[in-house]
Amino acid sequence: MKIDLNSDMGEGFGPYRLCDDEAMMKIVSSANIACGFHGGDPDTMARMVRLAKENGVGIGAHPGLPDRMGFGRREMPFQADELRQQMLYQLGALIAIARSEDMTVGHFSFHAAMGNMVNRDPALADLMMNAIAAVDSRIVVLVTAGSEIEKAAKRAKLKTLALFLADRAYDVSGTLVARGLPGALVKAETSVRKRVRRFLVDGTVEAIDGSVIAMPARSILVHSDTPGALELARIVRSEIEAVGATLAPARELAS
Amino acid sequence: MKIDLNSDMGEGFGPYRLCDDEAMMKIVSSANIACGFHGGDPDTMARMVRLAKENGVGIGAHPGLPDRMGFGRREMPFQADELRQQMLYQLGALIAIARSEDMTVGHFSFHAAMGNMVNRDPALADLMMNAIAAVDSRIVVLVTAGSEIEKAAKRAKLKTLALFLADRAYDVSGTLVARGLPGALVKAETSVRKRVRRFLVDGTVEAIDGSVIAMPARSILVHSDTPGALELARIVRSEIEAVGATLAPARELAS
Amino acid sequence: MKIDLNSDMGEGFGPYRLCDDEAMMKIVSSANIACGFHGGDPDTMARMVRLAKENGVGIGAHPGLPDRMGFGRREMPFQADELRQQMLYQLGALIAIARSEDMTVGHFSFHAAMGNMVNRDPALADLMMNAIAAVDSRIVVLVTAGSEIEKAAKRAKLKTLALFLADRAYDVSGTLVARGLPGALVKAETSVRKRVRRFLVDGTVEAIDGSVIAMPARSILVHSDTPGALELARIVRSEIEAVGATLAPARELAS
Amino acid sequence: MKIDLNSDMGEGFGPYRLCDDEAMMKIVSSANIACGFHGGDPDTMARMVRLAKENGVGIGAHPGLPDRMGFGRREMPFQADELRQQMLYQLGALIAIARSEDMTVGHFSFHAAMGNMVNRDPALADLMMNAIAAVDSRIVVLVTAGSEIEKAAKRAKLKTLALFLADRAYDVSGTLVARGLPGALVKAETSVRKRVRRFLVDGTVEAIDGSVIAMPARSILVHSDTPGALELARIVRSEIEAVGATLAPARELAS
Repeated sequence: MKIDLNSDMGEGFGPYRLCDDEAMMKIVSSANIACGFHGGDPDTMARMVRLAKENGVGIGAHPGLPDRMGFGRREMPFQADELRQQMLYQLGALIAIARSEDMTVGHFSFHAAMGNMVNRDPALADLMMNAIAAVDSRIVVLVTAGSEIEKAAKRAKLKTLALFLADRAYDVSGTLVARGLPGALVKAETSVRKRVRRFLVDGTVEAIDGSVIAMPARSILVHSDTPGALELARIVRSEIEAVGATLAPARELAS
Repeated sequence: MKIDLNSDMGEGFGPYRLCDDEAMMKIVSSANIACGFHGGDPDTMARMVRLAKENGVGIGAHPGLPDRMGFGRREMPFQADELRQQMLYQLGALIAIARSEDMTVGHFSFHAAMGNMVNRDPALADLMMNAIAAVDSRIVVLVTAGSEIEKAAKRAKLKTLALFLADRAYDVSGTLVARGLPGALVKAETSVRKRVRRFLVDGTVEAIDGSVIAMPARSILVHSDTPGALELARIVRSEIEAVGATLAPARELAS
Repeated sequence: MKIDLNSDMGEGFGPYRLCDDEAMMKIVSSANIACGFHGGDPDTMARMVRLAKENGVGIGAHPGLPDRMGFGRREMPFQADELRQQMLYQLGALIAIARSEDMTVGHFSFHAAMGNMVNRDPALADLMMNAIAAVDSRIVVLVTAGSEIEKAAKRAKLKTLALFLADRAYDVSGTLVARGLPGALVKAETSVRKRVRRFLVDGTVEAIDGSVIAMPARSILVHSDTPGALELARIVRSEIEAVGATLAPARELAS
Repeated sequence: MKIDLNSDMGEGFGPYRLCDDEAMMKIVSSANIACGFHGGDPDTMARMVRLAKENGVGIGAHPGLPDRMGFGRREMPFQADELRQQMLYQLGALIAIARSEDMTVGHFSFHAAMGNMVNRDPALADLMMNAIAAVDSRIVVLVTAGSEIEKAAKRAKLKTLALFLADRAYDVSGTLVARGLPGALVKAETSVRKRVRRFLVDGTVEAIDGSVIAMPARSILVHSDTPGALELARIVRSEIEAVGATLAPARELAS
């Protein structure tokens, strides 16, 4: 079995760092690279692309809202067309930087509020997915299984890859428990290990109410901007290796 | 004879405008589109691409330093590699927006201080031109004849097109007289007409000392951010038409 | 009778201009100076303060949301405390620049979305008005009569001055008709003249439904960022002079 | 003997941190607070002011160039008057935030490139110091002994306090050895202890060539944005206490 392990990277900018990107790049198989709006800058993006190349890691665009101070987590009242141009701007910027390093942007994943806004609005999701397809129809979109973004990507003939978040609780419908709610974050190392093992072996996850639900994902996302992120990523990777699965970049696994 | 008439466009952003882009787009054959650093923003860029498409105008990237307040006119101490990533970021951003509108970025021209820094430094010019070529080897670079950028573009196997600035004085060596110096700007309508006519008919220009020098250009640049810019552009276009020449986008004329 | 005529000024930044501030400063008695977030920058602010000093115009702070691209017109999900610090930051910045020119910031008026957010939320309005009072208890707050901001300003022991907008329609309750609705903007010169005359002579305005309502204001606001703004300001001023009233800065008229 | 121990603080912004400000605030007697241009933002500034208040720490303005990505370390070609307005803007912003927390901005220290530019240019130094004095003549300026800023501050009748940098080498003239040069940074804990002890006991420092020079300072600056900054600050504080000296904020020690 092949599985992707990915993380959001290059989200610092200038003198600021949110993550030890050099260390994380040795653990993951795909890097979702911030594109200069919520985090990142041209120089950091090139550094991420070079690190990914050195480590055989696949790269993807991780665009967000133009709000560095709020880290792209605050929704802002943009028109659909404005959001589309912001997304395209960031995607194109990464593609050019990647090409100059002889690398290809293989996948795409929205950051925070931009993703939330798109996921609520099928028409906006279509606008976005069609725009991505117009730029490069081979780009793979990382999605939550069953989401509006997944549906729109399929309508736009883009391949998708469903994500499993190892450190977040799901409810019985397969939806993430919102960050603010009790139990939303899975912190204990043994719990994360158990969840990853179950996901890898059975393709299921234990929901917050104790029921067991299907988790039809081929990619595990670990957050990079939390304390202990590197350790979490190492745990997930060791579980993947323990069950005899192989890491592969998102692009190779999409369908 | 075919000749290109181009202007820097989309240099406003948000609520701000520096030029009546809608009117200018009806006059020129090529638009150098600001890419969000010294001016412009994703929405304005898409608006420019759409206007260019409607008017049959060729589009090019016009990247500058990340300094909106100084309009990209102040040199800043960046490393060569930083400047390269800033240029690539902006170029890629426009390419993606253009592609989503079924348009192609056909040419490239530096804005202000970024161009001055590159033109002084052959190694930096090579770095920049090789990066452009890695992104799209068909891009045409607008240059001053004899400049370091022209030489580096040729080394990188990029086509170039030399510019004639109708409203700026040249010295006897074919170099622009610096903005601050007396006589640097040619303002009188009749003078501009005469200069454009001589350039079109004889391929020459009268230098500031009265001598006549060769002006081996195929493209006329009119500034858009000065009072009277539209009127100047109309004069230049009427002269082009008066001598029986035809307007064509930069990309078609390059060699 | 004394009356204030004010306008939002210095809302350009860097190379950008929204208004002929030099000309407007010769017409008004108070200038609401943008403080660098939605528009303006330190240099423009100092230029406005100097222009105001030359023309005997009173100066006030006109802070907005940190959103230059949206010109402070888009609401953004900030915490109350964040909004308070943003307001204080901008107010203090102008006070220091004014002091260095031997001028005093005499009044305060919110810009666009920041004002709308405050006007809807009495607790936020109290937080803001108490913060202003802590900085300088002599600052006069420009308000809509009957608004939450007016009430909070009074609770904070700040003086207020009610505004009349000559070019905007009111409904029968004295509330501004929202910008998007038909008839919201009063454009015809003769209509504006009539409205200003009635306001000055009778202290009333004709609401959008034709009824006549009280307009208990002592200050007339003219927008500066619309085409014809200067002409509108001149009309208002000529009406003020025609009825024998005298212009005076907001600070002198507040109660 | 009383001595000041200060550090640059609040230089993160939004989600980014450069220093554990909470811990550092328990060690120092004065905090140089970033004012939103090279680092910091209104919310972070208010947080720093509140932390300083809780810990009995004096606060000062630490303005820099408007260059977050370069952290204010790159010189930029601003006019003298532009630099003055940028400094005033930041100083005023902090004063207003401080006042709303019932705190006073007691001192001032330039950040990086802005300070270097001012220190080279006596006319610019006068412009800056006179502007500070116009805003609040009681503000104490942190300086290098013998520098242009110190001289200009005295001409403007501002009090000054000379700094000793415990972790940086000096040459025989009392000038800091430039960061790039060998030996510029003093890293070993025992070396720092010895230097601080000698400074406190004898008022001298061993220059990089081994000679002993006078160090007429009353304030020790520790950098906060380097690895080990907290530990360094604790060492300096323990040396101060070991010699029986007492910590006091910059404002109380100036002359």
